[in-house]
Amino acid sequence: MNELRNGHITSPSGFLASAIACGLKNSRDLDLTLLLSENDCCGAGVFTCNRLPAAPVILDKETLEANPTRLRGIVANAGIANACTGSAGLEAARASQQLAAIALHCAPEAILVLSTGVIGVPLDMRKISSGIQSAAKNLSPENGLDAARAIMTTDTQPKHAAYCLPFSEGTVTIGGIAKGAGMIHPNMATMLAVLTTDALLQSDKLQELLQEAVDETFNCISVDGDTSTNDTVLLLANGASGVSVQTEERLRIFAHALKELCRTLAHAIIRDGEGASKFITIEVAEAGREAEARSVAQTIATSPLVKTAFAGGNPNWGRILAAAGRAGVELDPARIKLWIGSRDGKELQLVDNGSPLTYDQAQAEAIFCAPEFTVRLSLGMGNTSITYWTCDLTHEYVSINADYRT
Amino acid sequence: MNELRNGHITSPSGFLASAIACGLKNSRDLDLTLLLSENDCCGAGVFTCNRLPAAPVILDKETLEANPTRLRGIVANAGIANACTGSAGLEAARASQQLAAIALHCAPEAILVLSTGVIGVPLDMRKISSGIQSAAKNLSPENGLDAARAIMTTDTQPKHAAYCLPFSEGTVTIGGIAKGAGMIHPNMATMLAVLTTDALLQSDKLQELLQEAVDETFNCISVDGDTSTNDTVLLLANGASGVSVQTEERLRIFAHALKELCRTLAHAIIRDGEGASKFITIEVAEAGREAEARSVAQTIATSPLVKTAFAGGNPNWGRILAAAGRAGVELDPARIKLWIGSRDGKELQLVDNGSPLTYDQAQAEAIFCAPEFTVRLSLGMGNTSITYWTCDLTHEYVSINADYRT
Repeated sequence: MNELRNGHITSPSGFLASAIACGLKNSRDLDLTLLLSENDCCGAGVFTCNRLPAAPVILDKETLEANPTRLRGIVANAGIANACTGSAGLEAARASQQLAAIALHCAPEAILVLSTGVIGVPLDMRKISSGIQSAAKNLSPENGLDAARAIMTTDTQPKHAAYCLPFSEGTVTIGGIAKGAGMIHPNMATMLAVLTTDALLQSDKLQELLQEAVDETFNCISVDGDTSTNDTVLLLANGASGVSVQTEERLRIFAHALKELCRTLAHAIIRDGEGASKFITIEVAEAGREAEARSVAQTIATSPLVKTAFAGGNPNWGRILAAAGRAGVELDPARIKLWIGSRDGKELQLVDNGSPLTYDQAQAEAIFCAPEFTVRLSLGMGNTSITYWTCDLTHEYVSINADYRT
Repeated sequence: MNELRNGHITSPSGFLASAIACGLKNSRDLDLTLLLSENDCCGAGVFTCNRLPAAPVILDKETLEANPTRLRGIVANAGIANACTGSAGLEAARASQQLAAIALHCAPEAILVLSTGVIGVPLDMRKISSGIQSAAKNLSPENGLDAARAIMTTDTQPKHAAYCLPFSEGTVTIGGIAKGAGMIHPNMATMLAVLTTDALLQSDKLQELLQEAVDETFNCISVDGDTSTNDTVLLLANGASGVSVQTEERLRIFAHALKELCRTLAHAIIRDGEGASKFITIEVAEAGREAEARSVAQTIATSPLVKTAFAGGNPNWGRILAAAGRAGVELDPARIKLWIGSRDGKELQLVDNGSPLTYDQAQAEAIFCAPEFTVRLSLGMGNTSITYWTCDLTHEYVSINADYRT
């Protein structure tokens, strides 16, 4: 498996993209994307668990269920989320699907729809309509990076990656783009991502592979604990490489690459988290069950007190334990162990069997002041562990969110 | 029921207090309090649900269970929480109880212990010991306000209140002090509070009354979603008024006053929330069950995106609905209604049956820019409602918590 430099969604064969500015963003930046596959695709999707899902989430679930094997493309807009917009919002999402289908010469049920941006504002269908028509004239395999830019909202960096898998009869490529900087919290994930591959894959395997990859990557990140109304990860496989991924070994290789792609994009979201100045890995080990490990990791990763301590470079480990204690998981205080570690793998133990250790304060501060570090908490309750990623809570986060309207 | 001006824990008859600076706070402010009742008291307590409870929480639960009717006093320290301190911490809490018992001439099991402050640091028992001895020499019914000051940590204001209930054979007084500004989130509550009354009450009733009052007050506030390791509310009833509260009518009157006292102290905690510039009431109406109403209210009250929008004075209602949607409660988008309201009771409806309304943007901004306002969300699923209180998330919160070590 090789990473492609500057890879993205049109790195796999047979995918074309186009991105334009249709006026939904006040900044006049790119805000509308079309993705077209030259062949029919199998598709899979993982969506937000928010009980007030946005209109495109409702529509895409419906589309994927009705037509999982003859998909052709995606229309995505940034600037307006089309969430909390009632039945008029669902009509607008359907209209976007229809307009894209006309422009891309395919059936409406071959098109998936994505929206991200301000909640509660109706889509301006005149802008969407003329945007789709203009974008359709400019489809090209060169535009994958522009597509990554066109789905950004408060992101400061486009997020994209691709990997090549050399097999005997040819190379399979898998690529993706993602957006997300705020309202980032698992369950499903908490952002938009579009993944493409030219592998020949069975539709029923695709959903399973995607769900598994998402659970260990996008569902293990948190910027602010807020699960968005629009979170969606889509995967389209068009088979254009002619390489069939069916044997157990090939499926394992493909699954590994898919997970790497998702992890790369998920880490890019955390590194670009709103106001984030630090990238923190949280490992919860020796938990009784996976759900318990996840709950403890998630509570630490979303605690405002922990995240402001991270921002302050303050080895304030009491807050980490206090957060673990309120995760709703049965704990035995006397078995708790805590380490912090620097990027180069050096670890410093702070707590052993529930009691604080005497440690080198300067060393602890040096670890916490670095832009990247690890917190490892061992519960002593079992054999399950999880890795979770988060960022710090800074002044900049408050500034961004006191002003920006989502 | 009359509110007593400047009332506190020694407003009820037969209670004496003393507060001194024993050197646990770097600021040299008051940090150790003794409370003594001249008579034996019935006691009740509600404690944190954090699975890593502080040593004094473990000890007080034990003491209240073993000796609920012959309590005499409380020793409280601020500066060090005696949490995450292992078995040495529990020994230190027991030693504090012993030392206070000797100084107050009573049995150890007549003393309850409270600690608040930095987590993971051992109590300095030399300071505690000399502090208890000095404090015991200065007990007086005049020192209730000093006690309120001595339990403060990041609080900027002492929090205290008292109410009088005139009955035919005399007046019952009920008073309290509380502390808390950060790590404030229900379950139990998330702070320390000491309540006293000179009413004659049965011990078994006391716990029931306290739990009920706490559920609707301290358990309905959140500053930052972090449930502390030390949260404790204690209520001591010494009967010194000679007025028996036993009939159904009197119990109702007393319960009402107790709830008012708890609400006053809970609101004081929110108004003094770390970095808080606004006091926000969140009403969730027409929920199917109480737990569902609470979950939705709590998710809104703890969402960093909602709280930064509050800080920005930005009527960013989409974030409120997005938070409601991720509360894990079944919702029907088409039944959702949302209002915001100013302190004088004027309301502005923003969402009706799941669809955004056209509203006066200037009026919405005026409401959100005021230091106090209400958010009312109707789910249309049933007849249950809840009221919850929170504050905004400001730059000041980040400053306080990036620097302060808890």
